[in-house]
Amino acid sequence: MQSAELGSILVRLLLIIIGARIAGYISEKLKQPAVLGELIAGVILGPSLLYVVNPDEPIFVFLAALGAIILLFIAGLESNIYQLMKVGRAAMFVAIIGVIVPMALGYFYFIFTGHSTTVALFVGGTLTATSVGITMRVLSELGKTKTEEGKIILGAAVIDDVLGLIVLAVVVGIVATGHVSLFNVFKLTAYGVLFLVGSIYIGIKYMPKIYRLVHEFEIEKTFVIAAFIFALFLAIIANWIGLATIVGSFAAGLILERAEHKEHYYERMKPVADLFVPIFFVMAGAVMNIKTLFDLQSLLPIIFITLIAIVGKIVAGLGAYGTKANKFQIGLGMIPRGEVGLIFVAYGLSTKVIDAHLYSLLVVVVMLTTFVTPPLLAAFMKKGKKEKVKRIADVS
Amino acid sequence: MQSAELGSILVRLLLIIIGARIAGYISEKLKQPAVLGELIAGVILGPSLLYVVNPDEPIFVFLAALGAIILLFIAGLESNIYQLMKVGRAAMFVAIIGVIVPMALGYFYFIFTGHSTTVALFVGGTLTATSVGITMRVLSELGKTKTEEGKIILGAAVIDDVLGLIVLAVVVGIVATGHVSLFNVFKLTAYGVLFLVGSIYIGIKYMPKIYRLVHEFEIEKTFVIAAFIFALFLAIIANWIGLATIVGSFAAGLILERAEHKEHYYERMKPVADLFVPIFFVMAGAVMNIKTLFDLQSLLPIIFITLIAIVGKIVAGLGAYGTKANKFQIGLGMIPRGEVGLIFVAYGLSTKVIDAHLYSLLVVVVMLTTFVTPPLLAAFMKKGKKEKVKRIADVS
Repeated sequence: MQSAELGSILVRLLLIIIGARIAGYISEKLKQPAVLGELIAGVILGPSLLYVVNPDEPIFVFLAALGAIILLFIAGLESNIYQLMKVGRAAMFVAIIGVIVPMALGYFYFIFTGHSTTVALFVGGTLTATSVGITMRVLSELGKTKTEEGKIILGAAVIDDVLGLIVLAVVVGIVATGHVSLFNVFKLTAYGVLFLVGSIYIGIKYMPKIYRLVHEFEIEKTFVIAAFIFALFLAIIANWIGLATIVGSFAAGLILERAEHKEHYYERMKPVADLFVPIFFVMAGAVMNIKTLFDLQSLLPIIFITLIAIVGKIVAGLGAYGTKANKFQIGLGMIPRGEVGLIFVAYGLSTKVIDAHLYSLLVVVVMLTTFVTPPLLAAFMKKGKKEKVKRIADVS
Repeated sequence: MQSAELGSILVRLLLIIIGARIAGYISEKLKQPAVLGELIAGVILGPSLLYVVNPDEPIFVFLAALGAIILLFIAGLESNIYQLMKVGRAAMFVAIIGVIVPMALGYFYFIFTGHSTTVALFVGGTLTATSVGITMRVLSELGKTKTEEGKIILGAAVIDDVLGLIVLAVVVGIVATGHVSLFNVFKLTAYGVLFLVGSIYIGIKYMPKIYRLVHEFEIEKTFVIAAFIFALFLAIIANWIGLATIVGSFAAGLILERAEHKEHYYERMKPVADLFVPIFFVMAGAVMNIKTLFDLQSLLPIIFITLIAIVGKIVAGLGAYGTKANKFQIGLGMIPRGEVGLIFVAYGLSTKVIDAHLYSLLVVVVMLTTFVTPPLLAAFMKKGKKEKVKRIADVS
């Protein structure tokens, strides 16, 4: 690599990281998640406007893929598999309805508008997964993570991620084999479930022993290297059996969350994530072609798909029937698609299932679901709090 | 990027990181620095043997360059510019002699054996810089960092790094312009000194203000991102004015060492370094072609250059004249070339000044200087301690 070439790559890397931080900061000041700013930074730096970032350049594509792997690893590390299993029927139903309804609505909308089965499946899949990060942030800002609604939303969002990853695994498998058959869907669902359940079961059962051994070697460096090796290893296995790499790193995170020194893994991997994850979002924004969005042909599908995405999740709130929780609030909490949705569409584009135009539409939909949630949730949750206070006042 | 391609890159990245850690661990068990093991891991994984790592693949070349930038940033962060200036005459003389003598001996040996001026300059430059890391590790294992000898060695080693980087800047500049003139050498030395002195002066004077501002924005993520941006920024400036990128990141480290929260920068960048620095050493090993070393034509130069490298630094110990410190021990402590030497040769190869064969020879020389130092230093320093104890016993 010549010195000028290295310099040019370093300059673009610097612009991506600076752009992501500035845009992320502005969007946080506007009470929006940093992710939105990072996507917009990508649009500005990408071919749509400045063209300093080429979304096809292998080094940045690879760094972005690494960012997605690390992102899902951290998401796994922040979840708790036992709490997930305990959070009960309500969260499970909310999650399942929240996957099936948007998936089905999205699928039929796209079949109805004349697209192929695989495209329709991919769009449906994009609409399934809830962004745990965005919802968790809004809830904790409102001090609502410990309420009945908060617990159900968080539990359902994590289950949603798992279900979303299984859907992704199935859809990717169908794309690879080129045809949809009931047997295929069944096989791939089984693959996805088996991989997640199997790796997590084996991981949690045997990892403590293996890791105690690893840490006897060289404690100082081992946490970050062990975590990275483990995330990469399961990402590679997942990739190898035809699942997405992020399914593997998410499983790795869930397993290490059960390890003895999970806080050390988290502490050491967090700075690595802080550096690499924004690269993924900037690249996701850079791939967007905003020029194709400024016409009626784009506006209509965006509105429809966004409505499907919102309605599908509000309906999911009904899954909490039988509890005292406010179903509407739960539905609102499930709206943001965020990271997993973006990973879905990025995957669809890289495997050429969806084209650049549809990719851009879907990224806008993901951004819209993320935009609307914090204000909606804040408005309706504060209302909920006031009602509660009133009721207590009535009783006393 | 197709899924199979991503998978293949991830597998190789995983092998590099696992190989580096295993070999690093073994070499630490054998009382050798981890760096040696990582180089050997590179030889094994590279084209010399297994060929799972292609040393010309852009993504890994880039990750290695990033590793070198982060390595020198951390080295800067671990140095202290004021202590360096205070450590006095002795360390300064040891450093200067330790740069001039090996440089001159190496230069004349290569001119004498019929090489071009630029090649001779590059080899001379490779022999200048002392590895602070290796020496510091051995000294601290012997509990000798606070002795007169220890202080002078550490001070001189850091000054050596700075001088080595200036020499690199000059040599790179000469290679770029294609001819050696006194004016050129003067200009490039001035560039190197001005860049280091200027950036460090400006950095230390104004950075606290700028950084207090930066941290008001978003404290949690800012440390690692700010450090990375700063290291990249000065690396790019250095690259732009014709110096090596690592000169810039070293200056960035020296500046941030003076910042208010330097321990946070260090803590957050350390895991990133733990992941990326081994990639640099593995790639440096992978570029070696061990097949070309197994003949008499290679053996002789290796022995000669290694002797020059060792003798040149032992002579440097005389720079401590006028102090009570043991000059021979100081000379021994200055022998290991380590990281900066490797960066030197890697740079020479990438700019095509030296060929693959000479590159391999020089890496072996760097490895040999690193191999011999810990046992030598341990043997002669322990002897020194015993003598001291005897003297105290005599007095009492």
